[in-house]
Amino acid sequence: MIIAETIAQVREVIAGVRASGKTIGCVPTMGGLHEGHLSLLRRCRAECDFAVVTIFVNPTQFGPGEDLESYPRTFEADRAACEEIGVDLIFAPSVKEMYGEENLSWVNVEKISSHLCGASRPHFFRGVCTVVAKLFNIVTPDIAYFGQKDAQQLAVIRRMAADLNFFVEIRSCPTVREADGLALSSRNQYLDADQRRQAVCLSRALERARQLVASGETNPGAVIAAMKEIIARESQGRIDYISIVDNELLQPVARIDRPVLIALAVHLGTARLIDNITAAPAKK
Amino acid sequence: MIIAETIAQVREVIAGVRASGKTIGCVPTMGGLHEGHLSLLRRCRAECDFAVVTIFVNPTQFGPGEDLESYPRTFEADRAACEEIGVDLIFAPSVKEMYGEENLSWVNVEKISSHLCGASRPHFFRGVCTVVAKLFNIVTPDIAYFGQKDAQQLAVIRRMAADLNFFVEIRSCPTVREADGLALSSRNQYLDADQRRQAVCLSRALERARQLVASGETNPGAVIAAMKEIIARESQGRIDYISIVDNELLQPVARIDRPVLIALAVHLGTARLIDNITAAPAKK
Repeated sequence: MIIAETIAQVREVIAGVRASGKTIGCVPTMGGLHEGHLSLLRRCRAECDFAVVTIFVNPTQFGPGEDLESYPRTFEADRAACEEIGVDLIFAPSVKEMYGEENLSWVNVEKISSHLCGASRPHFFRGVCTVVAKLFNIVTPDIAYFGQKDAQQLAVIRRMAADLNFFVEIRSCPTVREADGLALSSRNQYLDADQRRQAVCLSRALERARQLVASGETNPGAVIAAMKEIIARESQGRIDYISIVDNELLQPVARIDRPVLIALAVHLGTARLIDNITAAPAKK
Repeated sequence: MIIAETIAQVREVIAGVRASGKTIGCVPTMGGLHEGHLSLLRRCRAECDFAVVTIFVNPTQFGPGEDLESYPRTFEADRAACEEIGVDLIFAPSVKEMYGEENLSWVNVEKISSHLCGASRPHFFRGVCTVVAKLFNIVTPDIAYFGQKDAQQLAVIRRMAADLNFFVEIRSCPTVREADGLALSSRNQYLDADQRRQAVCLSRALERARQLVASGETNPGAVIAAMKEIIARESQGRIDYISIVDNELLQPVARIDRPVLIALAVHLGTARLIDNITAAPAKK
C-alpha cells in the first residue's frame, strides 16, 4: 500500500496505473474511518483494479464555531484498516498541499445545496464540492464511492459530476447502523453515555416516518410532527431541521405522492447528528 | 478532421488518442475565428500530437442585454480554417448538449474576477470558468491555449486550473493586431466604417500608457488621465473602465513600481471593445 502526501506523488502513481489500463476507484473521506467508510472501501476494492482512499479533514467545509479542531484524526488506525482491506493508495495531504497559500476557486451547486444542511451550514457544500472536484482531478477515478448517510452530499456531488462533465461514475452505499439503529458517524464519539442512548431518537423518528408514509400518510407536516414528538420525548436534542424533500433536487414536497427523502439534523451536546431514509408512499 | 457535436463522440475519440499515448492540445473558442484565434490554432497544431478546437457560443457568459443573439456564428468559414491548419477535431456542441435542461453547478474564481470586465459583467467569468471546466473534463487536454487579448480571462483560467488541480498546462499567445493597432476581435464586425476608424483609440491610449510608464511615470491616475484624454479626443467611445492592476490577482496598484497590466474597455456604437498591454516601469 502506497501512502502519498503530495499531489505530484499521486499523479505519478496514477499515470502508471492508467498506462496499464487498470480501473481506478476512489473513496474520499475525512478519516476517522468506521464501518460505514469500510463498507465503501470494501466495495471499491471489489469493483476496481486500483483502490484509492483519500484522507483529508477539509477545512473549507467547516464553518466558524464548528468542529474542525476537534474532528477525529486517527491516521494510524485508518492506515491499518485500509491495509487490511487491500487498499492500493492512501492520499493524505496537508492543508497546504491541497490549498496552497490561498484558494480563490470554488465549485458551487445551486438549489440542491440550499436546504437541509445547506441552510444551517452555508459554506458546507461549496467546501465539499471544491475539495471533491480537486480530488477527482488529482486521482481521476473511474468510480467514486459515497455513503447514503450523507444523502445531500451524495445528491450534490452527483449533480456536480454530471453538470461539470467529470468522467466519473458516482456509486453510493447504504448507511451502516449500530444494533440500536444509530447511523455510524465520526461525530458519534462526541456523545457521552447518556447522549449516546438518546441519539437513537433520530433513527426511531425516521422509522416512524417510514411507517406513516407506508401506511398512507401523505401530509409532510403530519409526518414531521410525529418525528418531532419522538425526538422531544426521547432526548434533550435540539432539532436543526426535519425535512421531507424530493430525491433529486431535494426541494420540500407539499404532498408525499412519490418516493421522498426524509432527513433530519439534531444537536445533542456538542454533536450535530444527521440521518435520513428514503420512503415510498403506499401503493393504491 | 473529425467534427463532433456530442460529448460522447468526443470522449470516444479522446479515449483512442490517449490510448495511443499522444498529447492533446485544445483551443476553446466561441467561433468567429480570426487571425488571433488562428495563431492559437497554429501553435496548438505545432506543439501537440492531437489538436482540438472547441466552437461554442457559451450563453452563460453573456448577461441580459448583451450580444448573445448577434454574436458572429460562422461555422463554415471556421471549419475551413481549422481544416487548413490541420486541426484533428472540432467539438461544436449545441447549448442543450453542453448544459442539458438546467445547469446548477458553477465554478467561480474570487478576487481576480471582480475588477475590470468582472465589474461591468458580473456573471461573465462564472460562465467562462464553468464552460472551460466542462471542456477540460470532456477534452482532457494536456495543453490549452488562450489569447493574451482576453488578459483577465487568461488570469482567471490559469488560477482556476491551478486551484482545482486540472492537469492541464495553460499557454497564452500575444494579441494579434490590425495594421493600425486595433486588436482583432469577433466584435470588431459590429463597427461601422467611422467607428472602425475611431476604434484605434484603444491601442493608441495603451501605447501612450506604455511610453509614460517606460519614461518613469509611477502614478496610475496620471497614466489613466492621459489615456482618457486620447479616447475622448479621438473617438465618441464611452469608457467602461481603464485600470492598472498587478499581473497575477489583477488588483489595482497604488503605484507603478513593478510590471503591471493596463487594461480598458470602451463602448463604441453597439460594440464593447477591450484591449490591454503589460508595461514595465523604467529601470533606475
